[in-house]
This record gives sequence, C-alpha cells and structure tokens, in this order.
Amino acid sequence: MTYCVGIVVDEGLVFAADTRTNASVDDVRVHRKLHPFEYPGEAVFVLMAAGNLATTQLLVSRLHRDVEEQRIPNLRSVRHLFEAAEYVGALLVDSQVQCRDPEHGHDGVNTQATLILGGQIAGEQPGVYMIYPLGNAIAASPETPYLQIGESKYGKPILDRIIQPRTALNDAARTAVVSLDSTIRSNLSVGLPVDLALIRRDELRLSGQLRLCGDSPLYADIHRNWARRLEQAVASLPRFPWE
Amino acid sequence: MTYCVGIVVDEGLVFAADTRTNASVDDVRVHRKLHPFEYPGEAVFVLMAAGNLATTQLLVSRLHRDVEEQRIPNLRSVRHLFEAAEYVGALLVDSQVQCRDPEHGHDGVNTQATLILGGQIAGEQPGVYMIYPLGNAIAASPETPYLQIGESKYGKPILDRIIQPRTALNDAARTAVVSLDSTIRSNLSVGLPVDLALIRRDELRLSGQLRLCGDSPLYADIHRNWARRLEQAVASLPRFPWE
Repeated sequence: MTYCVGIVVDEGLVFAADTRTNASVDDVRVHRKLHPFEYPGEAVFVLMAAGNLATTQLLVSRLHRDVEEQRIPNLRSVRHLFEAAEYVGALLVDSQVQCRDPEHGHDGVNTQATLILGGQIAGEQPGVYMIYPLGNAIAASPETPYLQIGESKYGKPILDRIIQPRTALNDAARTAVVSLDSTIRSNLSVGLPVDLALIRRDELRLSGQLRLCGDSPLYADIHRNWARRLEQAVASLPRFPWE
Repeated sequence: MTYCVGIVVDEGLVFAADTRTNASVDDVRVHRKLHPFEYPGEAVFVLMAAGNLATTQLLVSRLHRDVEEQRIPNLRSVRHLFEAAEYVGALLVDSQVQCRDPEHGHDGVNTQATLILGGQIAGEQPGVYMIYPLGNAIAASPETPYLQIGESKYGKPILDRIIQPRTALNDAARTAVVSLDSTIRSNLSVGLPVDLALIRRDELRLSGQLRLCGDSPLYADIHRNWARRLEQAVASLPRFPWE
C-alpha cells in the first residue's frame, strides 16, 4: 500500500508521500514514490504514484526519456497543466498495458496505478491533478484543496480540519507530515521515510525538498510532542453536564 | 455504515456510537446503536452494534426478554464478563440465522453484525469485548485500550495518540467524541447524533449518558474551535530547513 497527498494553497503546492512497498507482509521494501521534474523558469512538476511499482517506474522512465529525446508531447512541450495530466494519463494507460503483456509479466497481476501530478507551467496557475488508471483526471479546487491516493482514510481528518486556500505553505507542509504520520502509526502498509516537496507559486522550481526519517527533528518532535498537544486540545473542550 | 468505539481506562469505560443507518445513499435513517443494560449494584453493560439492523434489533430484544423471563443464561445470571460475551455471541449467531431464514427475509442479504460489549459485573474488573459475526470475541487490554467497529480508520489516529490506561475518564470520552466527529466529517455514511455512555469503575450503573446533537455545547465547540486548536498545534511544530 501507499499514502500520498497533494495540496494546493494560495501560496503554492505541497506533496508528501511514504516510501513503503510491499508484495505481501513478508516482502517489504523502500521505494521512492515522489518524483520531481524540474525545468527551472519554465515548468516544474511533481508526480506521486500508488499501485503497481513496475508500472510507475516504467512511466517515470518514459517521462524522462520523452523530454531527453524531445518526443512530442513531453513535460516541457505541454502548455497547460491539464495537457500534462492528459499526456501522463495516456502514458499511464500504455505502461499498464505494457506491464500486463505476457512477455513482460505474469497474467492476473494487477498492473494498475493511480497518480497525483501537480506543478506549474510558466504563465499558468499552479495546480494538482489526480490521474486514474483509466488515464482520466480530476483537479483539486478551492473547495477541495487536496487530493489523496492510496491508504487515505487515516490522514484525511487532519487535512479536512486545517487545509484551506489561505493556509500558509509551510503550515500546509507540516499538516501533510502529520497526516502521513497518523497513517504510518495506524497502518503497517505505509512506512517511513516520508518524501516532501514544496513548490512556491511562480518560483517555477522546487522551493523545498526533504526526506524525513524517524530521527528528523520535525518527525521526532511529532512523535514526542504531538500527542501531548492533542491531549491539551482535548482537555480544553467543554465539560460534560456531570462534571 | 456505522462507527462505534469502546474504551477501557483505569477509571472506567467509555462508549460512543453514531446513529446513521443506510440501505443505500437514498435510504438514510437514524437508529440507536448504543444499548445500555443496567442492573444497579449488580451489573451494567453497554452493547454497540455495526451491521444488519434487523439482526441487532432482534438481538437486543432477546437480551431484554431473557432477563425478564429469567431464561438461563441472561445478562443478570452471568458471573464473568467473558461469559456475557459468550452468551451474547451465541445469541448473535442465532439472530443472524433467524434473519436469513427465507420466511423472514430476502436471500442474498448480508445479515451479519459485529458488536462491542462492555461493562462490569459486581466483584469483577470492568472490560470491553468485540464480538465477531462468528460469535467469538476479543477483549481490550492495557496495550490495546480501545476497540472499534464499522468505519474505523478516520477516527483511529486520535485514539492511537491519546488513549492510555491513565487517561482520565472524561478526557477519554472527549477523545471519543472527537474521533466520532472526525469520522462524521470525512464520511457520509456515519452521522449525527452521537450517543455517549460512561461507566465509572465499581459504580455498577451508568455514570453518564448523553445524546450529542450538532448544537450540543461540546459538539458545537468541536466544530468551532477544534480546527483552530489543531492549527495552533501544527504551527508549533519545528521549522523546515528553508524557513
């Protein structure tokens, strides 16, 4: 399993993903699921993937190849974010089929993947899309300022309560880390380290990128102090009639 | 769907349940899922149910009948909590079969239910059991001081972070309400009002019972102020290297 979240606020975009992959409970590994594509001053994208690892690795390799070989379309040739989502969606469908080919893999294995693609192209607004295995996509919006893929339920309440368009970019990033940590704590199939990337509006490059391990100051503090902060918040709620 | 949580702390027991039932998204109703059985000075139980409503209503009616008609076993005749769980489990299996009888219902309908049964019998420790559709049961313990049934993922992180044996009973109840609210906010199949019941150790009666609607002071405050308290907690986390 996997948990990734992409957030749009007025100041820019936040991406956070875990790194655990598992074929079963006794085949657990660490693989990067957050992939930046940076063309400074021109365009910047972050792609996150949940699902079949062979499919998503093939997809990422093809995205890089298409730019290097200047195949059209590629991530530098698209003029609008929805076109990037369309292009990546088409490549996803093709990668899923490729992986299902009897000559390349086992029959009966689910080769599907679901993606989050976000970023900004010069002259365009920043945005985040969720791309389905069918290749179609939906965009985040001010009413729904975040999109999740994978094991999304544990980490949803904190996002629902905090994330709004006016949330500061770094606070949105801290919220994303708490959302990841809540999921990691409650579900074995989502695991450390956490990859985090920020894109500040109009900077057209990665504004911050970090791999958080268990001993990172932010992560260690969440483990040490988050429960205490929540306890204080709970204790400050109104009394019951019998108290 | 449904969400119920039963908590054991040193001071006693907390039970919280939503009240939404739905056959599909266009057949949504309010039904009580938290059922107290109070025999003051002798024993006190709370039963919560997720699953087929016909099954659980039949089960609750039978539990009351068995006490009234002094059938053995009944909730007043059992001497240990695990015997109560065994008895209720057997009645659950029987109620599921009863509901599946072609003369009493449609074939192909899932008549299963999962239960949480907690309470205290005079001279015994308080405790909470989860009873499976098969009729077997597991108990909460100091390492796992809460049990959930139904739509459990959204409300799990707050419980994982706060609930410990030393948590005060009323704070555990406030945490349960936040856990319910997180679920209600994130999932349409779980809805207000919320039923809450507390059993303080050795009181052998319900120590507090409350139905929380959207305009209850505690609930209204959670809606108004919980997000703000979380925002403050997020903002107090350590800075990123780029800040």
